[in-house]
Amino acid sequence: MLENITQAQIKQMTLKELLALCEEAREKITETVLKSGGHLSSNLGMVELTVALHYVFDFPKDKVVFDVGHQCYTHKLLSGRCGDFSTIRQKGGLSGFPKRAESEFDCYDTGHAGTSVSAALGIAKARDVKGEDFSVIAVIGDGSFNNGLVYEAFNSLRLLNTNVLLILNDNGMSIAPTVGSMHEYLEILSEDISHKQKKDRHAKIFERFGFAYDGVYDGNDLERMIDKLTEVKNRLKNESVILHVITKKGKGYSFCEENPEATHGISIKNAEAVTEEYSAVLGRTLSRLAEKDERIVAVTAAMTTPLGLSDFFKKYPKRSVDVGICEEHATILCASMATEGLKPYYAVYSTFLQRSFDEIVIDICEQNLPVTLCIDRAGISGADGETHQGVFDLSFLNFIPNLTVAVPKDTKEFEKMLEFSANFNAPLAIRYPRAGKRIFDIQSEIVLGKWEKLIDANGKYVIIACGERAVTLGIVAAETLSASGIAVSVINARFVKPLDTEILDNLKETHIITVEDNMLLGGFGSLIDVYFSESDKKVKNFAYGDGFIPHGGVNELMDEFGVSSGAIVDYIKSNEN
Amino acid sequence: MLENITQAQIKQMTLKELLALCEEAREKITETVLKSGGHLSSNLGMVELTVALHYVFDFPKDKVVFDVGHQCYTHKLLSGRCGDFSTIRQKGGLSGFPKRAESEFDCYDTGHAGTSVSAALGIAKARDVKGEDFSVIAVIGDGSFNNGLVYEAFNSLRLLNTNVLLILNDNGMSIAPTVGSMHEYLEILSEDISHKQKKDRHAKIFERFGFAYDGVYDGNDLERMIDKLTEVKNRLKNESVILHVITKKGKGYSFCEENPEATHGISIKNAEAVTEEYSAVLGRTLSRLAEKDERIVAVTAAMTTPLGLSDFFKKYPKRSVDVGICEEHATILCASMATEGLKPYYAVYSTFLQRSFDEIVIDICEQNLPVTLCIDRAGISGADGETHQGVFDLSFLNFIPNLTVAVPKDTKEFEKMLEFSANFNAPLAIRYPRAGKRIFDIQSEIVLGKWEKLIDANGKYVIIACGERAVTLGIVAAETLSASGIAVSVINARFVKPLDTEILDNLKETHIITVEDNMLLGGFGSLIDVYFSESDKKVKNFAYGDGFIPHGGVNELMDEFGVSSGAIVDYIKSNEN
Repeated sequence: MLENITQAQIKQMTLKELLALCEEAREKITETVLKSGGHLSSNLGMVELTVALHYVFDFPKDKVVFDVGHQCYTHKLLSGRCGDFSTIRQKGGLSGFPKRAESEFDCYDTGHAGTSVSAALGIAKARDVKGEDFSVIAVIGDGSFNNGLVYEAFNSLRLLNTNVLLILNDNGMSIAPTVGSMHEYLEILSEDISHKQKKDRHAKIFERFGFAYDGVYDGNDLERMIDKLTEVKNRLKNESVILHVITKKGKGYSFCEENPEATHGISIKNAEAVTEEYSAVLGRTLSRLAEKDERIVAVTAAMTTPLGLSDFFKKYPKRSVDVGICEEHATILCASMATEGLKPYYAVYSTFLQRSFDEIVIDICEQNLPVTLCIDRAGISGADGETHQGVFDLSFLNFIPNLTVAVPKDTKEFEKMLEFSANFNAPLAIRYPRAGKRIFDIQSEIVLGKWEKLIDANGKYVIIACGERAVTLGIVAAETLSASGIAVSVINARFVKPLDTEILDNLKETHIITVEDNMLLGGFGSLIDVYFSESDKKVKNFAYGDGFIPHGGVNELMDEFGVSSGAIVDYIKSNEN
Repeated sequence: MLENITQAQIKQMTLKELLALCEEAREKITETVLKSGGHLSSNLGMVELTVALHYVFDFPKDKVVFDVGHQCYTHKLLSGRCGDFSTIRQKGGLSGFPKRAESEFDCYDTGHAGTSVSAALGIAKARDVKGEDFSVIAVIGDGSFNNGLVYEAFNSLRLLNTNVLLILNDNGMSIAPTVGSMHEYLEILSEDISHKQKKDRHAKIFERFGFAYDGVYDGNDLERMIDKLTEVKNRLKNESVILHVITKKGKGYSFCEENPEATHGISIKNAEAVTEEYSAVLGRTLSRLAEKDERIVAVTAAMTTPLGLSDFFKKYPKRSVDVGICEEHATILCASMATEGLKPYYAVYSTFLQRSFDEIVIDICEQNLPVTLCIDRAGISGADGETHQGVFDLSFLNFIPNLTVAVPKDTKEFEKMLEFSANFNAPLAIRYPRAGKRIFDIQSEIVLGKWEKLIDANGKYVIIACGERAVTLGIVAAETLSASGIAVSVINARFVKPLDTEILDNLKETHIITVEDNMLLGGFGSLIDVYFSESDKKVKNFAYGDGFIPHGGVNELMDEFGVSSGAIVDYIKSNEN
């Protein structure tokens, strides 16, 4: 039924047909994700709720914003994208997140947590200003519900004087189990059996902000969800409503239901060998360092396991904090703990660190505090696309005073950098990709601001690269060119800031090629351009140009966006002619 | 009494002496601020509360974090800084904000809103990890209480399992009167007369998060505050407490009490002439454009009047939103309103826009939405110091794909740019300082990415400058050098992104000098360095080096940090020799 289904057809269906539609969607999602990777258990939990939304509301006239957005698969299947669904998260295929550019049924692009309530309010406000008439819905998980943005949006509901429906999809998990007091409060609510009683006792916290609170409902019970949404749709003419819905993450597949964290995101193993993930090195090394150094504490924002820190958290519970999806708060906790002499490590994905920009500037760096940012999934991260690429971090960190920025060339160097960090008494950022794929032979001691020569070829060209991917490209390019008789040196710029001015000032090569897995503007190469702006050296930068990078495989995207050994080789060869 | 007062002396004082101390502090603050500028009414409201804190607690062993921090004047007076107090906010003198580097009594630097609860929790957590024993206090105003960070911190109180005292200093104002539902809720609380009744009815919202709620108390009643704080201090051994205190902004001076918004910050008029403030041009022009264009809406975050938009808000109440100190939420509101065809203008100080970095990337620019960021107080802003300089914006905006960045050379050009923006259908940032000081004769039409030649001197040097301050320096330098027979062209780089490649590709000058009121790294000049990295052109950048810029006068700081016409003249002359 799913194939080519229309909104009109959905509305004509009997309950029995709708239930069959749910099963078909569930199978399609499971089959596709197990084959190509993607978000599994969150989408399985959302099937009935999404079918009910499409049955009751009138999309695309009505608008639904999915918080974070990875739970939108059923919505995609029901809105004309079933035929392309097998291409999801692959280069050129459907996005794994809502995209306005992909379908008129996607009204707002999401990717980072907590934005849906603000976005729904803005859409509703615009509707009111224009004098139009449609419903606006935000669907937000209990994990995102921790984020401060939700409170900011709540706080302005009465000000904006508009009506939205907020569906709180409570499955007790972000990626890891949800933490924090609001979650505990939601748990109390969800354990109530009699709705009447519960509403009277507990709804006040939401009513204060202008929402009518309704729930708890079983979001996997299609019939009840349809009835409830039909009722709520009418109420939206006069008020904003929070509908508290319990769904089962992984619903319908016992393995997913029993392992919701492990099946949140499914990665399809690449043929390429991975020596070790950087996260594993972080966890192992930090645990070891913490044995001898009682000042070390670790902070995460709802990502403890994928960041490699679950063992650390078990071993040092008093020195570990997972604050939930609150990246700004996590950053200030680190800064303030550092003021009292602790040595905090904040581990975070590159893309989510964007949320902490102001706190890195003001709280960590202006106070010059010894916080270490361990920035995982840096560079192109791949299948999640535009909103998740870690290609901006060097650009938004490089110009912050007092901050040292380090980029290890392999997991072994990362381990050494972590050892270095333990005795480093100032703000430090270390950025690295997920997968470590090779270990280089040369492993010199880590000294602040000192680079490492990997190939000294005594020619006209030198490649200066930072990070494992870029250094690997540099080495491959140099070896290829060497075979053609062109001598190219290669330097590992393990510190992007400060630059190794001793090496730069004494370069005998006249033509510098920089390579990095980051945006050109503000990135590593641009620092070299600035350094040599008055000199006669020629500098050519290999980095990402001025555009967002969509989803796809890491290597294919790096190739397409111009950071490849082939592009370096071609450039140097063309320069020789 | 204030001069050289010690903590021990304060604790020995009788109530009568303490009251006299309050009056002395109040006089000292008023006298100093009226002479040198600074924050007045917020500090007058805080006198008794601060004296009570110093009487009851044991600083610097106990720690107090002031949210935003500008209300710390009495604290400075009581902690050994009375003698230097007349130097406050002047170059080389005391900071107007708490500074760890200034005194051991300042345990945490603040400047942006909402960080104090997180910081207090981090300090308390560190205390617990180290097994130490002291009290940790956050003092936060009701304006900051809107910020999402507060919710994130609340949410982790139970997780962190630590005890802090949160003093909610409720004066009904941020800079403007506080808005939003949480404020309305606080108002309900503060209107309660019987504490017992109120606590029973209303404290639940805070108790949910693990705080005991106590209050409302008159924070200007010294005796009661001392009694209450003494009682609360003991409770901190076992629990975290919110103490809700009402203070009168401007207390003790009727003019301030009656005009708390106007006397929030006192600026001492500079001798230099100001033709017009950019904010006035924004307000006037946007109001005019909005008459013809019903899509135009304006959004602010608790700064409507200083941003020049109070008339717009009066004229178009349905198309105006002040969300309180919620910069992230404001940004998403703009993005989402734009998805529905509105034309949002988000007016904000440069330094506070740092909070919106992630939302500018993900919500505005990834979706390529026509939101205009009107960035006031860009460049060095002066007396507020490190945490308020607007010198990072070009660096954190330039690399964001889809974003156009414009920098007007004077208020007249700013008006033209706003007219340009009304028909521009993509993300646009316009950054400008507070004061417009001159109007240039040349005023050519605004075309996307096109610069303007101000002096065409047919020599070896060209100065490319962006923004009124930099263009002025460039013109002065060129005129000075012209008198010495050195021909220097001057170009107004009104668009920092995209660059005017037609001009750049056809430059006859071989030596380029860039000038800007921003950090060197990632700033305008660095874009020129990148552009010419492979060419033979020499580029010299005048911009701020790698450090935080303290408080002082705008011109003296620009001089000291190397962005001055003298420095440009010296450079070019030395290059001639």
